[in-house]
Amino acid sequence: MNLGTDRSVEAGRRERLRIRSQNSSEPTAGLAPGNVQANLVILPQALAHDFLRFAQANPKPCPVLAVSEPGDPRLPSLGEDLDIRTDLPCYRVWRRGELVEEPAEISHVWRDDLVSFALGCSFSFEHALVEDGIELRHMTCGSNVPMYRTNIQCQPAGPFAGPLVVSMRPLRPSDAIRAIQITSRFPSVHGAPVHIGLPAAIGITDLAKPDYGDAVPVENGELPVFWACGVTPQAVIAQVRPEFCITHAPGSMLITDLANSKLASL
Amino acid sequence: MNLGTDRSVEAGRRERLRIRSQNSSEPTAGLAPGNVQANLVILPQALAHDFLRFAQANPKPCPVLAVSEPGDPRLPSLGEDLDIRTDLPCYRVWRRGELVEEPAEISHVWRDDLVSFALGCSFSFEHALVEDGIELRHMTCGSNVPMYRTNIQCQPAGPFAGPLVVSMRPLRPSDAIRAIQITSRFPSVHGAPVHIGLPAAIGITDLAKPDYGDAVPVENGELPVFWACGVTPQAVIAQVRPEFCITHAPGSMLITDLANSKLASL
Repeated sequence: MNLGTDRSVEAGRRERLRIRSQNSSEPTAGLAPGNVQANLVILPQALAHDFLRFAQANPKPCPVLAVSEPGDPRLPSLGEDLDIRTDLPCYRVWRRGELVEEPAEISHVWRDDLVSFALGCSFSFEHALVEDGIELRHMTCGSNVPMYRTNIQCQPAGPFAGPLVVSMRPLRPSDAIRAIQITSRFPSVHGAPVHIGLPAAIGITDLAKPDYGDAVPVENGELPVFWACGVTPQAVIAQVRPEFCITHAPGSMLITDLANSKLASL
Repeated sequence: MNLGTDRSVEAGRRERLRIRSQNSSEPTAGLAPGNVQANLVILPQALAHDFLRFAQANPKPCPVLAVSEPGDPRLPSLGEDLDIRTDLPCYRVWRRGELVEEPAEISHVWRDDLVSFALGCSFSFEHALVEDGIELRHMTCGSNVPMYRTNIQCQPAGPFAGPLVVSMRPLRPSDAIRAIQITSRFPSVHGAPVHIGLPAAIGITDLAKPDYGDAVPVENGELPVFWACGVTPQAVIAQVRPEFCITHAPGSMLITDLANSKLASL
């Protein structure tokens, strides 16, 4: 199935080549608009199967867009020329759960047993919401979306276990209903919300104190709407403390050749 | 487009013939399960065009399933043998806005200028919700769904104008999200909710005091979810006080040959 358009393939390739040839750690938000961007997790092969099982069992926080061959830095279904070692602006390298480096490329730490996972990212569904005229508060505020650990436990797989992390966007009720319709069409990038309106029911006691990102105001006449978040797998991996792991740095995503619109299931 | 199945056509015909031959005013809920039931409005031709324009402009409260030829008691797209004068258990006859009679058939008041409108009814989407395992509180309570006048004004057309009336079902947030997905598939029977969570924002000050139907408890951890309601056109007609009008009696609906499942847009 071809999930790109001529435009998205050309834009994705152009941005990746530019990032590959430069040494800047610019955030990717707004680059190649309309293209799918992805979260990145790279793990040793010994952990890869359990992680993929975890993702399969928890598709809302961990929607898998692509998995590499062991040791192969390519993900051809996301971009023909894509090299996972060089094409993100900034990476995080972890050893036993400790952040040891934030390099602009990872060729020097690459290993023959590494498996790359590209996971769907909320940028795609946010693009669809904004195109529909829905205001996203964290964009208005110029801040990161607020994220919260919930009391909902993910389905465990091997060593991978932990709570679901959610992102929150305050919306007027009519916009919330529309946002549920729109994001239901995008199951591969977190899909429909997991909760609406009653944060305490999922273990969130204070919206003003997110566990990740920045707090945003929830106005009178608005409901907080919660989506499963790609920070979930990162939080779970941090708990497992694998001997080696690489992820994207926050905001520094993998730009793919895929078009957001092609992810729509309907 | 054929919206019936062999089963639904046979069941619809059987129930209508039974109702036609008896003189009982039994409620139709539960009869021919899986079949579409409809609200009925019959108006003189002089008002029919404005009413149809009103329905067209307000499709969520007034989803039109069929309109008859003037003076013709048949609605063949809803049932080949259907006779609108005899096939409902109980009717209401109105003169200048006053209820003058609740007969079991309306042949004695039929006129050559009458136009029948069959409008979608929440029974259809409730069937889909219950099939999906969602509890509907008014069914658990064995009562009528609570309905409220809102501060949302319908789009007026000719003499027809007035507030949107909504029905309310309390749901846990995850069920509410699922119910939005399910009812979005049924635009011809009110479709997605119009509001969720904040009744005061649409002018409802006390959920315990519905304008129509019966109050139901909203438990901790539940949100009130509001759908546009087929009582809206009846309330609007009552305000217009047409010289002559016939409607179904509450709970005594038109049983059609259509299958609920065939109304799903996806």
